[in-house]
Amino acid sequence: MLATDEAATETLTDRVVREVKQRVAQRALTPGARLPSIRAFAAAMKVSKSTVVEAYDRLSAEGIITSRPGSGFYVDAPLAPLSLADLGPKLDQEVDPLWITRQALGRNPALLMPGCGWLPASWMPQDSLRRALRGLARGDALALTDYGTPQGLPALRQLLARRIAGQGIEATADQVILTESGTQALDLACRFLLEPGDTVLVDDPCYFNFHALLRAHRAKVVPVPYTAQGPDLDRFERALAEHRPRLYVTNAGIHNPTGATLSPIVAHRLLKLAERADLTIVEDDIFADFEDEASPRLAAFDGLQRVMSCGSFSKTLSAGLRCGYLVVKPAWIQGLTDLKVATSFGGAGLAAELVHAALTDGGYRRHVAALRSRLAKARAETSDKLRDLGVMPWLEPRAGMFLWCRLPGEIDAAAVARRALVDNVVLAPGNAFSLSQTARSHLRFNVAQCADPRIFAVLRKAIRAAA
Amino acid sequence: MLATDEAATETLTDRVVREVKQRVAQRALTPGARLPSIRAFAAAMKVSKSTVVEAYDRLSAEGIITSRPGSGFYVDAPLAPLSLADLGPKLDQEVDPLWITRQALGRNPALLMPGCGWLPASWMPQDSLRRALRGLARGDALALTDYGTPQGLPALRQLLARRIAGQGIEATADQVILTESGTQALDLACRFLLEPGDTVLVDDPCYFNFHALLRAHRAKVVPVPYTAQGPDLDRFERALAEHRPRLYVTNAGIHNPTGATLSPIVAHRLLKLAERADLTIVEDDIFADFEDEASPRLAAFDGLQRVMSCGSFSKTLSAGLRCGYLVVKPAWIQGLTDLKVATSFGGAGLAAELVHAALTDGGYRRHVAALRSRLAKARAETSDKLRDLGVMPWLEPRAGMFLWCRLPGEIDAAAVARRALVDNVVLAPGNAFSLSQTARSHLRFNVAQCADPRIFAVLRKAIRAAA
Repeated sequence: MLATDEAATETLTDRVVREVKQRVAQRALTPGARLPSIRAFAAAMKVSKSTVVEAYDRLSAEGIITSRPGSGFYVDAPLAPLSLADLGPKLDQEVDPLWITRQALGRNPALLMPGCGWLPASWMPQDSLRRALRGLARGDALALTDYGTPQGLPALRQLLARRIAGQGIEATADQVILTESGTQALDLACRFLLEPGDTVLVDDPCYFNFHALLRAHRAKVVPVPYTAQGPDLDRFERALAEHRPRLYVTNAGIHNPTGATLSPIVAHRLLKLAERADLTIVEDDIFADFEDEASPRLAAFDGLQRVMSCGSFSKTLSAGLRCGYLVVKPAWIQGLTDLKVATSFGGAGLAAELVHAALTDGGYRRHVAALRSRLAKARAETSDKLRDLGVMPWLEPRAGMFLWCRLPGEIDAAAVARRALVDNVVLAPGNAFSLSQTARSHLRFNVAQCADPRIFAVLRKAIRAAA
Repeated sequence: MLATDEAATETLTDRVVREVKQRVAQRALTPGARLPSIRAFAAAMKVSKSTVVEAYDRLSAEGIITSRPGSGFYVDAPLAPLSLADLGPKLDQEVDPLWITRQALGRNPALLMPGCGWLPASWMPQDSLRRALRGLARGDALALTDYGTPQGLPALRQLLARRIAGQGIEATADQVILTESGTQALDLACRFLLEPGDTVLVDDPCYFNFHALLRAHRAKVVPVPYTAQGPDLDRFERALAEHRPRLYVTNAGIHNPTGATLSPIVAHRLLKLAERADLTIVEDDIFADFEDEASPRLAAFDGLQRVMSCGSFSKTLSAGLRCGYLVVKPAWIQGLTDLKVATSFGGAGLAAELVHAALTDGGYRRHVAALRSRLAKARAETSDKLRDLGVMPWLEPRAGMFLWCRLPGEIDAAAVARRALVDNVVLAPGNAFSLSQTARSHLRFNVAQCADPRIFAVLRKAIRAAA
């Protein structure tokens, strides 16, 4: 509301001033850069030259630009610190991924979080974790106090190589690099593979932090519509031809937010397209342990030639144990390891020891089996309750915690989210996941966070109010 | 040796081919970029045009470049993955920071490590750590399994605010951001403040991983000589005028590798220069707990206006607990937190809980007091043993684990290091820390890793052989 009011009383000069300040904030204009000439900027902004003259005068008075007689105007402000908020489009807070993430991570006990992306603490394998902590407390001093080795704990890398073999990905422990988190693994892959300005394909919708992460790398992000079997291949092929992307970032296994899984035929055709366009793919396998049976992995079909796989243990073991991994072809190990050491030094350290202990604890296997059943039950129950409100799941996922749903009658999900927030319920509206902003009537629900009946009462009320 | 042999038999065409391949590896030439014309490249490389024609033919045959008739030659190879090794100067492995780090982190029990940058496991507060682990094993489920809050554990941030108050740095807990490591804190600061191509000042010598980290950010790194009281201010001022750097990265407290500490007058004058040049400073306070009494902090003098402070607990508590921090002015909190969440998501999680428990354990204070005495004793003993070999400390540090020493008679430290490696002793030759390569006869010793008498026997032998 505030933004609209401001815009209404904004003069043309204000608008030019704001535009220049925004370009400086986005680092599109860096210190010392020459501003467009008065004539050119007036034409571009569709204002008179005298308006630009007035705006440049004001910016000069504020010390943001300076004139050099006979040469033009130059940026005089210091480099703006990098602001992801300024780099992206301006969004209402209810669909702003940064805002939603901040709320979700904020641990405010008054809030209900059906939109968040993780399981409640009571669903996590606490006994395995407590045993792992006690074991480490009795264990080797080096494990307690030393930096990890550059690639990370060998025993955990061996275990990971065996785990991914179950998905058909053939890799040795030497091809695994431990990182400080799954997000850091993806970040490292981006550093390794991207130059600022490169184009990256993502699914539309996709996990919203992919947008923020890629923005931090100054990538140009191009969304490709996602179907129930994987990306829309015609659109994918067109995007390859049109944008010549360097990279495609997607989920392995269960797709976030839709809960869809890749079909073998789409996987195969996608890799043929990628090969022709010399495209590299990063497959984020963070939901691996939710699946009873592994769905097709691009990394398995491709043999880790142009696909790298990453993941972590935050969804089924503990999000507090900061430990992720990358699995890559041998030729990339040294470069990625050097880059990891340069930018974070350690190899997950003590967290890797704890993850290894917890994963090899007999209780973990039982935990995962119980978790899958519990999630299946919660998906069915939540799906029923949502359908009662006219909120329809796009598909019934094979596994996982997410239901991607459409509101009845094209209702605006952001309006519903805004309304629900008044009653302390944080929803995840579709457009937070959609770069094309075409998921206006969608919401993502986390079935493990939907046990509280208040959620559905608040949702019913919010839908009525927004309808 | 191999490199020299290769160079000796290299033809002029080989040289041109190698130069182009190197530019592609360094991403100085990216896919689709136009190569210099044959005439221009021949002039630049001081070879004949027919040599360049031959080289371009070979590169075309290898599929690295392609010709477009009438237009020139273009890079046809895919983007090279980012390689820190290719971005930096080619160094012998004994003075290559990446190689030394890999060895030091490799946990090879056969190697003695007087050159490494951390304390032996037996010097670390294992009892405090074991108690912290057992406490967490009994503790709250949320602490075990949940993501940290965006800025990180409030109790630890409060503790940090109180700790740095003891150094004269006034900041509230809200100005502290927890990160996954001290290196990650510095990395985050660089993302926030730098654009590729920006210039950064570092001390000469300085902690070698600063070079690798800044290279990963594509910064131009300019070294400024370091004196026993801090940076050489005349040279610093000249570097400001000549290079217009965006940032200066240095140590707070005890300088790595020299063991020097900043004098108040240098701190004051440095900040005046920084203000005039609008320079931002990151002060890495990783050795904070080694000091009996805090030496001047730039962040304290400046009031966190243009200085940000970072650090971790890896040197006096545990390197396996991946948890660092940044202390910054309020205006920068939101932007840095967004960037941290986008690129690593968590806020140190369980490691932050363990650090907090260990730091507030009564045993930690006693540990630190004992550690300082033990290091003082080890500094004196190691200094004596080194002097016996003619290896002279540059100064006697007030605190910490490092002795920065000069070999007798201008002997080449790299040759000594190469020789010592045969006997399983990994040294840290001066030029690994010196971007200007002016520390050819220096070595950094870690006095806590010098208890084994074999080190001095090997060193004596290596010095004789190199003399």
